[in-house]
Amino acid sequence: MSIQEANDVNDETYMKMALGLARPTLGQTSPNPAVGAVLVKNNEIIGMGAHLKAGEPHAERHALSMAGKKAGGAVMYVTLEPCAHFGRTPPCAKALIEAGVAKVVIGAKDPDERVSGRGIRMLKAAGIEVEEGVCEEEALELNRMFFHSVTSRTPYVTLKTASSLDGKIATHKGESKWITGEKAREDVHRLRHTHDAILVGVNTVIADNPSLTVRLPGGGKNPVRIILDNHLRTPADAGMLHDRQAPVWIITGENGNKEKKAALEAAGAEVMTLAGDAVLIEPLLELLGESGIRSLLVEGGGSVNDSFLRSGLFNQIIVYLAPILIGGKEARSSFSGLGIGRLEDTAKLTIKTTETIGDDLKITAVREENHVYRNY
Amino acid sequence: MSIQEANDVNDETYMKMALGLARPTLGQTSPNPAVGAVLVKNNEIIGMGAHLKAGEPHAERHALSMAGKKAGGAVMYVTLEPCAHFGRTPPCAKALIEAGVAKVVIGAKDPDERVSGRGIRMLKAAGIEVEEGVCEEEALELNRMFFHSVTSRTPYVTLKTASSLDGKIATHKGESKWITGEKAREDVHRLRHTHDAILVGVNTVIADNPSLTVRLPGGGKNPVRIILDNHLRTPADAGMLHDRQAPVWIITGENGNKEKKAALEAAGAEVMTLAGDAVLIEPLLELLGESGIRSLLVEGGGSVNDSFLRSGLFNQIIVYLAPILIGGKEARSSFSGLGIGRLEDTAKLTIKTTETIGDDLKITAVREENHVYRNY
Repeated sequence: MSIQEANDVNDETYMKMALGLARPTLGQTSPNPAVGAVLVKNNEIIGMGAHLKAGEPHAERHALSMAGKKAGGAVMYVTLEPCAHFGRTPPCAKALIEAGVAKVVIGAKDPDERVSGRGIRMLKAAGIEVEEGVCEEEALELNRMFFHSVTSRTPYVTLKTASSLDGKIATHKGESKWITGEKAREDVHRLRHTHDAILVGVNTVIADNPSLTVRLPGGGKNPVRIILDNHLRTPADAGMLHDRQAPVWIITGENGNKEKKAALEAAGAEVMTLAGDAVLIEPLLELLGESGIRSLLVEGGGSVNDSFLRSGLFNQIIVYLAPILIGGKEARSSFSGLGIGRLEDTAKLTIKTTETIGDDLKITAVREENHVYRNY
Repeated sequence: MSIQEANDVNDETYMKMALGLARPTLGQTSPNPAVGAVLVKNNEIIGMGAHLKAGEPHAERHALSMAGKKAGGAVMYVTLEPCAHFGRTPPCAKALIEAGVAKVVIGAKDPDERVSGRGIRMLKAAGIEVEEGVCEEEALELNRMFFHSVTSRTPYVTLKTASSLDGKIATHKGESKWITGEKAREDVHRLRHTHDAILVGVNTVIADNPSLTVRLPGGGKNPVRIILDNHLRTPADAGMLHDRQAPVWIITGENGNKEKKAALEAAGAEVMTLAGDAVLIEPLLELLGESGIRSLLVEGGGSVNDSFLRSGLFNQIIVYLAPILIGGKEARSSFSGLGIGRLEDTAKLTIKTTETIGDDLKITAVREENHVYRNY
């Protein structure tokens, strides 16, 4: 192994550590990305950190604080290009220059075209060596929801379904509780924790009166709860309107009844109106993007799922499969409505991971379009 | 590590090698099990073999032949208890005694209650040391179809489905070719190769006129082709009746039209009649067991799948999932008919393996009842 190769191995080791610091913060940093940083000098770690919450210090700041005066001449490993602009905190590139670090190793560039490369240029102008693209694939993957949101200005959309091995969500008699096991249902709460918002159709609200909160053993962050409700049929006594656990947004069309709207607003919901009779997915996602939602978890029911499917506007689907067979021509599947008519019109997905959760299987399949973010 | 532990490691190594010799022969040895053998002396392999085809020498014979006179004092590793009876070949236990082997290490006992343990007793009576249960789980797994068949006298039943991630086998417009990719479809041919018979419903024959043969790059063994046909609606010009690639058995009820029966028999099919108007799964499996079928691959369609599902008489299901979503309330799923009404009545399965085949996912889920064969 040449010295260069030995250096590369070290670079990857420290970058993987920085990625490992950032990964568990996914969901708590939004609207900011998850970022980790490790500061190294003479092959000793002298500082480390992760960005924990919007408005609080960035990862690089935490690592520099830990190192104190030792930061001079050190190498900073950071999963995302350091910022060059004054936001809620001063630019990290400036802090790195002031601390006198010798080199900055970067996982992925900033995805925002308006600022991408500016942090790197600022560092280089100050004579700091910069290396880009170390563990880039993992760094892009870590913040794939954030990157999609920043570049498209619409939220990253995750569809979630849970069915038997043959795709049924209930028996022909309507029995549906529970198809998947406790561990898989708990995993859904982790999914909620890592998304900014959950969306369901009004029929689900009427049928199940769900709370849509995160109920994990150690607590969790409740996402905004969104109800797709073309004709304002949400019951004013729906539990989530009154539990004060997280905001409730009701998205409706132009012809929603004004009195009903006032009643729902009085009950605590925010009612948002889109043009047209029925809410379309594209303007819905634009509205949510403008409202600061970077990631959206769609939890059904069947006709909402069908709307997203037929719009083609989703980024991944997470399928939980229980090891049972239900069968039945009349038994419901995850998607109702019309569906896709021709196979060539179905979106091509890639199966990214499969894992066993309790007795069930969790399959994550992503849209191939996501890969464009490699080339932003 | 003690000497005893070191020996155990070697025992497992040689047994795993014997299992590795047997595994690729699955499908070609029926009605016999797949068996591998390795003969070892002074830590050198002096013989090896696998049973290749019913009527030909057993694995132990091949290994003994290869070793010749060196077999005296050696240790035989064999995945299944050596036979003690005269079948189409003389008993292997006798051959091992005559060759003067010092010790026989066995993976799994013979599952047939009438003969289980007889080979072991014969060896012990001749002063040969016998060790049982080395890599027992893998040895049982290797021949799980054979073991089921011998103990239940009915074939091991594999259901096979191929659908989109949301469980659809066609779009609402009826388009179904192809949902899974070429590699997954080739894998189905490997499944056929490892089963004694394939079963489809008459509707599948009428709609698709399938040949149900094994079409693999290197050739393969064609299973018996079975059509479930309550009212003898199989067209007399169906391709498989005339291709002479493998036998065609048509299973029908008592009220099948006699002239139609004669026409199908004239075309080359064997027509088998079961009591009653409609064929029931339990007597069907008993008939197939009596006819020497140890393993049955059920390839649909939907109403045949439903009959097996509701009878509860199946041992595993292999689900190929394509990374697409089709949706549609009216789009067909793998199982039609009534299905299971109550969740507590669904058979509990265990997801045994998931693997990626091309772009698709292959899930193998087995009935928990299979595990009883550990304790035969």
